[in-house]
Amino acid sequence: MDIFKRALELHESLKGKLNVENKLDVQSKEDLSLVYSPGVAEPCKVIHTFPDKVYDLTIKGNTVAIVTDGSAVLGLGNIGALASIPVMEGKAMLFKRFAGINGFPICLETQDTEEIIHIVKNIAPVFGGINLEDIAAPRCFEIEERLQDIGIPVFHDDQHGTAIVVLAALMNFCKITGRKIKDLRIVINGAGAAGIAISRYLGKTDAETPNQEIAKEIIVCDSHGIVGPLRTDLNDFKKALLDYTNPNGIDGTVIEAIVGADVFIGVSKENLLNRDDIRTMAKDPLILALANPIPEIFPDEAYAGGAFAVGTGRSDFPNQVNNVLAFPGIFLGALRSKAPRITLAMKFAAAAAIANGISNPTREQIIPPVMDESIAHKVADAVASFAEKA
Amino acid sequence: MDIFKRALELHESLKGKLNVENKLDVQSKEDLSLVYSPGVAEPCKVIHTFPDKVYDLTIKGNTVAIVTDGSAVLGLGNIGALASIPVMEGKAMLFKRFAGINGFPICLETQDTEEIIHIVKNIAPVFGGINLEDIAAPRCFEIEERLQDIGIPVFHDDQHGTAIVVLAALMNFCKITGRKIKDLRIVINGAGAAGIAISRYLGKTDAETPNQEIAKEIIVCDSHGIVGPLRTDLNDFKKALLDYTNPNGIDGTVIEAIVGADVFIGVSKENLLNRDDIRTMAKDPLILALANPIPEIFPDEAYAGGAFAVGTGRSDFPNQVNNVLAFPGIFLGALRSKAPRITLAMKFAAAAAIANGISNPTREQIIPPVMDESIAHKVADAVASFAEKA
Repeated sequence: MDIFKRALELHESLKGKLNVENKLDVQSKEDLSLVYSPGVAEPCKVIHTFPDKVYDLTIKGNTVAIVTDGSAVLGLGNIGALASIPVMEGKAMLFKRFAGINGFPICLETQDTEEIIHIVKNIAPVFGGINLEDIAAPRCFEIEERLQDIGIPVFHDDQHGTAIVVLAALMNFCKITGRKIKDLRIVINGAGAAGIAISRYLGKTDAETPNQEIAKEIIVCDSHGIVGPLRTDLNDFKKALLDYTNPNGIDGTVIEAIVGADVFIGVSKENLLNRDDIRTMAKDPLILALANPIPEIFPDEAYAGGAFAVGTGRSDFPNQVNNVLAFPGIFLGALRSKAPRITLAMKFAAAAAIANGISNPTREQIIPPVMDESIAHKVADAVASFAEKA
Repeated sequence: MDIFKRALELHESLKGKLNVENKLDVQSKEDLSLVYSPGVAEPCKVIHTFPDKVYDLTIKGNTVAIVTDGSAVLGLGNIGALASIPVMEGKAMLFKRFAGINGFPICLETQDTEEIIHIVKNIAPVFGGINLEDIAAPRCFEIEERLQDIGIPVFHDDQHGTAIVVLAALMNFCKITGRKIKDLRIVINGAGAAGIAISRYLGKTDAETPNQEIAKEIIVCDSHGIVGPLRTDLNDFKKALLDYTNPNGIDGTVIEAIVGADVFIGVSKENLLNRDDIRTMAKDPLILALANPIPEIFPDEAYAGGAFAVGTGRSDFPNQVNNVLAFPGIFLGALRSKAPRITLAMKFAAAAAIANGISNPTREQIIPPVMDESIAHKVADAVASFAEKA
């Protein structure tokens, strides 16, 4: 039976993948008077006087809202709030499984930027962090940006989760092949949440990370080809790419872009490349074909074209690039340190921790396997050590 | 050690009273592909095509949001969202303990009526019901009223939970003493959420409940005394009381109001009455002194004044009037029947089920004990049988 049919049957039998459970079994009237009225008045008073005590007396310190508007769900697109719930429940399961964090789905009726920002600000009190999920670009950039000062971390996983794992893969690729990020020519196909975040990490320094290595050349492509100076159809976020990508101002197709490139990162379109395209790239290139479920090119085909290492988003091939390697540990580290936001420095620390999760990376294992339970905790330690205090 | 100190220590040791747990232990990459990507796409598609399937494929059908703005928390008043979290967690524990329902706290920054209504509408998709909690009157009335058509039940427990249990107590008081509600003169002290709801249940018929028994006379008092025609300081909700309470248009104090009354219901002020006041009431009166933690009059004092039966909000006296007897079963019945709202008919059915929860009521037991686990399920059956279909 195929996986989709089995997944449906599993969901039908579970009727929801999460349970909210009591940490204490309320056996007696006395228990009742301790967890609820009248005893509960005491912790309330303490928090009212010392707001920071909320982290010691409630679920806040270990609870993350998984917020979506259902506008860009997996490969399904704009299916809306109701239909997005199974994905958000699944995300919550990963938070619990890998980091012991309480994740709870908040699926919003509205897809209006201002309304989403307003609602997230107002539901924030009970949460220690906000994971934005499956919100369409470019809306997702503004929403995340404008929520950075609400006092708890707000992290759009579709941007940063993927970018952080990609960066980890690049670090180990360089380690194995003796290259440096600053010498790499990189082509990114896809100018949505993930593509733009990856280009920022690799293409521009930041006040937080002044010593960050910048790639020699980055070219970003979208469905209309290379994002270049002659394009007249670019939104503001794609226009901003021109400041730090495509230094020679070339135009053309993604196939033309990859000629001579060291790295191809696909976060958009299935079945894009074949072995002959790979042959036009620099020697021993890294291919990260992350389109799901059908990658831009399958590993065997990429290797036939001379790829040095290949990663995909799939669990049935080596080098699965999956943001589950990043977000559980990132939130665990941020919550543990009560960081008010997740800075770029913390994100780079996470990428390094993921890369270092393998002592001896090989072309078959440039990143750790997704089920490696040690990664989230290594990431959490690294992230916490770079956290700015609230 | 006093209960407040012990409650604080318990909260410090628990660091939050709830856990979000996975129903399935994710052991393998394959489990991952069933509960998350790519398998999860299938239930998403099904819900997108058949929205009602959301009840079979997600937590919606068994999950209730406990929504507050922190403006009227227990006896603590307007302590805000953060400080209200322990109460909402406690409420969630009661939902789980008595009805197996997932309750989740949503504590809102805003205390603006329009914003609260807007936010509740927008977070509704993942929830099967909304329990409004500790929102100040009169705001709470408009908020609940305007959320009745969002497709899932919205129930303000401070109004209806208390009123339903009070009605149950009255039913058994009448049963024991052979009186009828229509012959009773009832004084309600407190014109907030609970007081006004109780007066509506006992004082006016409704399209849903045309055959409901109306009390002979109801007098509502607030902190300024009897709500009467000469009052110039009444808000719209108190003004509305004049249509169906205080038929003789009297004015004065609550002490004057109870002269000759059969029932006193206090939902406001501690230490209000003494035995001599009770002596001015009709023979064998019912005293429900529900102010917490200090009642309007203590049971021994009320009995000394000739009370037939006395109920309080406290767990250390007989006849504890506590809405935990009502809300878990009411939501369980509403969720089971997928009712779009909780009608007055369903609320009266709940009251009758609570009253009938004791086969032979006595003055020491006019309502079931709060820890009686059978009540929620009896209430759920009764509520479901009166539910209108969506």
